[in-house]
Amino acid sequence: MIILGIDPGLATLGYGVLEKDKNGNARAVDYGVVLTPKHERLPTRLAILEEGVNKVLDKFTPDEVAVEELFFSKNITTGIAVAHARGVALLTCIKKCGRLYEYTPMQIKQALTGYGGADKKQIQLVTANLLRLKGIPRPDDAADALAVALCHAHTSRLSGLYSI
Amino acid sequence: MIILGIDPGLATLGYGVLEKDKNGNARAVDYGVVLTPKHERLPTRLAILEEGVNKVLDKFTPDEVAVEELFFSKNITTGIAVAHARGVALLTCIKKCGRLYEYTPMQIKQALTGYGGADKKQIQLVTANLLRLKGIPRPDDAADALAVALCHAHTSRLSGLYSI
Repeated sequence: MIILGIDPGLATLGYGVLEKDKNGNARAVDYGVVLTPKHERLPTRLAILEEGVNKVLDKFTPDEVAVEELFFSKNITTGIAVAHARGVALLTCIKKCGRLYEYTPMQIKQALTGYGGADKKQIQLVTANLLRLKGIPRPDDAADALAVALCHAHTSRLSGLYSI
Repeated sequence: MIILGIDPGLATLGYGVLEKDKNGNARAVDYGVVLTPKHERLPTRLAILEEGVNKVLDKFTPDEVAVEELFFSKNITTGIAVAHARGVALLTCIKKCGRLYEYTPMQIKQALTGYGGADKKQIQLVTANLLRLKGIPRPDDAADALAVALCHAHTSRLSGLYSI
């Protein structure tokens, strides 16, 4: 089974692709980011994101997709921009993969470390360790995307199953 | 020239279609809303919005599209949901109409009444009056969409011209 994880962002959207075998073991197939130029206007950047996510969907044809939910404690303006991008990511994924799940940052932390208060670095180390990677994937957005995919692979709670 | 105005929303997205003649006079061609059921999950609702906006774009093939920007003073959770929907609206429009413009609520008020502090009711009355409608269009989201289209028709400032 192929699982695609997505960490939504406007400037940088992270993706991570896992293959889960019959024994439940996951290995990393690919990971990376879709970048949009800051000098472009918002609609153009959203179109670039859609194109990038579609390329990943077409290349790996995931059976299930997991998308990180937004958490706001910092900048509301950034949050609004990310929400625009996340809307496009959800739309693009649901059109090609009906099995779409959402996880909060806390659910991801809980699933990977058993502790909802784990910090970003801990999550990245656990992700690299569980996937037997030689180092923490770069950039952070790709590591975060692998973490949400891994959270989905490990979790038994199907939080938000969508079919369209 | 056909102008499509959009007031983005997740539960209710308003649209308004104007025809502007050579003398700059605008008349309402159509207006309405795209509704998404509250019981559906977010990705499904976004797909319904895309389908609805695409139907409007295909039916009226606008030359230019004007989309209202978000203004947050109230509920941040609602704001995030609207931003998801707005991302989908911008993406859907830019794919079919490169001439896409964005206007803030204040720009719309200023363009229609000459006063950035005008209230919602005043804007709706001015919109109905300028378009020689018998009453204020219902629901509010459709009236707001006509207002942003009218703002674009009247304004000489091309605030944010996109081509893709």
